[in-house]
Amino acid sequence: MSSVVISGTGLYAPPSIITNEELVASFNAYVLRHNQENQAAIERGELTALKPSSCEFIEKASGIKQRHVVVKDGLLAIDRMMPLLPKRGEGELCYSAEMAVAAARQALAQAGRRAEEIDFVLCGASTSERPWPAVAIEIQKELGCVGFAFDMTVACATATFALSTACDAILSGMARKALVINPELMSPQINYRDRDSHFIFGDAATACLLEREEEATASPLYRILNRRLKTSFSYNIHSHCSFTTMAEPNLTFERFFAADQFFVQRGRKVFRELLPMICETVEGQLHDQHINIADIKRLWLHQANINMNNYVARQLLGREASREEAPVALDEYANAVSAGSIIAFHKYRDDLQPGDLGLICSFGAGYSIGSIVVRKVR
Amino acid sequence: MSSVVISGTGLYAPPSIITNEELVASFNAYVLRHNQENQAAIERGELTALKPSSCEFIEKASGIKQRHVVVKDGLLAIDRMMPLLPKRGEGELCYSAEMAVAAARQALAQAGRRAEEIDFVLCGASTSERPWPAVAIEIQKELGCVGFAFDMTVACATATFALSTACDAILSGMARKALVINPELMSPQINYRDRDSHFIFGDAATACLLEREEEATASPLYRILNRRLKTSFSYNIHSHCSFTTMAEPNLTFERFFAADQFFVQRGRKVFRELLPMICETVEGQLHDQHINIADIKRLWLHQANINMNNYVARQLLGREASREEAPVALDEYANAVSAGSIIAFHKYRDDLQPGDLGLICSFGAGYSIGSIVVRKVR
Repeated sequence: MSSVVISGTGLYAPPSIITNEELVASFNAYVLRHNQENQAAIERGELTALKPSSCEFIEKASGIKQRHVVVKDGLLAIDRMMPLLPKRGEGELCYSAEMAVAAARQALAQAGRRAEEIDFVLCGASTSERPWPAVAIEIQKELGCVGFAFDMTVACATATFALSTACDAILSGMARKALVINPELMSPQINYRDRDSHFIFGDAATACLLEREEEATASPLYRILNRRLKTSFSYNIHSHCSFTTMAEPNLTFERFFAADQFFVQRGRKVFRELLPMICETVEGQLHDQHINIADIKRLWLHQANINMNNYVARQLLGREASREEAPVALDEYANAVSAGSIIAFHKYRDDLQPGDLGLICSFGAGYSIGSIVVRKVR
Repeated sequence: MSSVVISGTGLYAPPSIITNEELVASFNAYVLRHNQENQAAIERGELTALKPSSCEFIEKASGIKQRHVVVKDGLLAIDRMMPLLPKRGEGELCYSAEMAVAAARQALAQAGRRAEEIDFVLCGASTSERPWPAVAIEIQKELGCVGFAFDMTVACATATFALSTACDAILSGMARKALVINPELMSPQINYRDRDSHFIFGDAATACLLEREEEATASPLYRILNRRLKTSFSYNIHSHCSFTTMAEPNLTFERFFAADQFFVQRGRKVFRELLPMICETVEGQLHDQHINIADIKRLWLHQANINMNNYVARQLLGREASREEAPVALDEYANAVSAGSIIAFHKYRDDLQPGDLGLICSFGAGYSIGSIVVRKVR
């Protein structure tokens, strides 16, 4: 079998930025008002006072310093705490597709490919903004690609699972050149009234162009050496937001904004259960491939939480990893869900040498773990 | 390369049935009340009177006689016209996963496989009931499968695209045995106040077990000979129902139930544009594979509309197709979205002889077309 390479990547982050300072100011104003309005009930012990947050807490808990969002308007207003996002209709790209197209064009340019050479567009995102028709088909049309397109999702690990899926299609001959695009529009899915999760996510899209090694002309070029995918069910990260809410009995307007309609996470359980699974999966993969961890020059890890990444890198390497060995993008982009590890790969790979090995690894909700070993060809 | 076979299939349709008679009685009662309540405005010409429907209209327009639904309660009540579907929470399978598991168990039994032999669960449905975690991971856990799982969607053609995706994974060695499951939960996504679309869909789940031919022990066995996938953007079938509705400006409770939050179709445009694309795609595929249409013993077509299927079969064969050549399942199951062509394949294949060729073809929103040539091995 011939090899599949990643011959181009792209990253689009919307220009609007929300710093921790801004987010905390909004959250604390909401907490203050809530506690004042409910002062009597709190004093009677009927209600627990909400706890304010701080930039120090957020940065210590996650490593995140800011996040990009598609629309900032409305998000910080304590009467709303939700972006003002007019629905995109006929003749308009949906927000996800718009982000995706911007990232895809960079990947095409880097690979030296025209859109009409692409016969497979795979949109891999943790949620779908517009399932009818699929977001991937919107992207395919806007770029002018041919062939076929579809959407896939497996929460946080979608990007690596999608790379693997496109790789399969190229190896089997179903596609020659594939664009794998990860537009993550999380800002409307966040409960900005929840101290433990309101700071986690940012919006961003990444793109990778995949083709057969013998056809690739671009540089840098990364060969996909080995892939390992694993899922194991957990409810510790979930959301109940879907079309079925419309069909619930005794439905009220408020129900659409209940906590379970947003991203919900039990962070400590996720840490305890997921971290050993990640290490075991990657160690098993390297062992089976007879690859020594010392030969892996870079770990492009999922960008959800700096403490998770430090743990994983330390377990794998048997020592602390330098920032060069395990680059950090989450300080600037926050957790861009499945796009995270590709952001790291996109930004931090130019200094590797031909022959060097690296690992792209995404993990999280599902639980899902996707681990891809790549070798720099040139 | 070795061949991939379909060694087992399954079909689950929920026991509750709604006949055309019941649906029309409910719709016409709604129309009558609406026209009575708005009589003055209608007489002043400010409002158009709604038009009642009939069983004859539905059957002539579509061929559909009844549909299965997960929950019938509430669906026919003219004050509601929406199933009463309590949200499934922690520890409960979501409705889609529940349907999927029932279909999957049949496919496992037919293939003579245990769940723990399955290392890839692919949930292909036109929409996702619970993206965090993925529905496929719920199914994987409930069945006791190993390996990995993910969700994919490309509207009406999802089933054939998913078969192709699983086939790729087996050919590349990423998976050995895959369950491709298509749970379609459309009943809460239908605008039951819309005369042109309220009758179209039914709920159902199908499953196919895929493995390498040399490992398969079951009979009947169908080899996947050739696959062709095509997408081309159209807005003529769409829905705006997604998490972004929550973020719209000036949101009201009623907005969540506006027409564009449901499945919307411009039927005549779809007929005019999609039918030639389907025929061209299949004819191109058969031509490239040097297969004469006369050698295709059965057309398991997408089960959306009898007039579409008659048109496609007539164009391909150059004459009217018999019901044996192009079996009909939509009379009983209505349009079960991507599951449709697999329902037909599941129910109508036992009489084929070893060596016989058949075509599984799904098509619709996207536009998307997936066409798979299979040969009966035994």
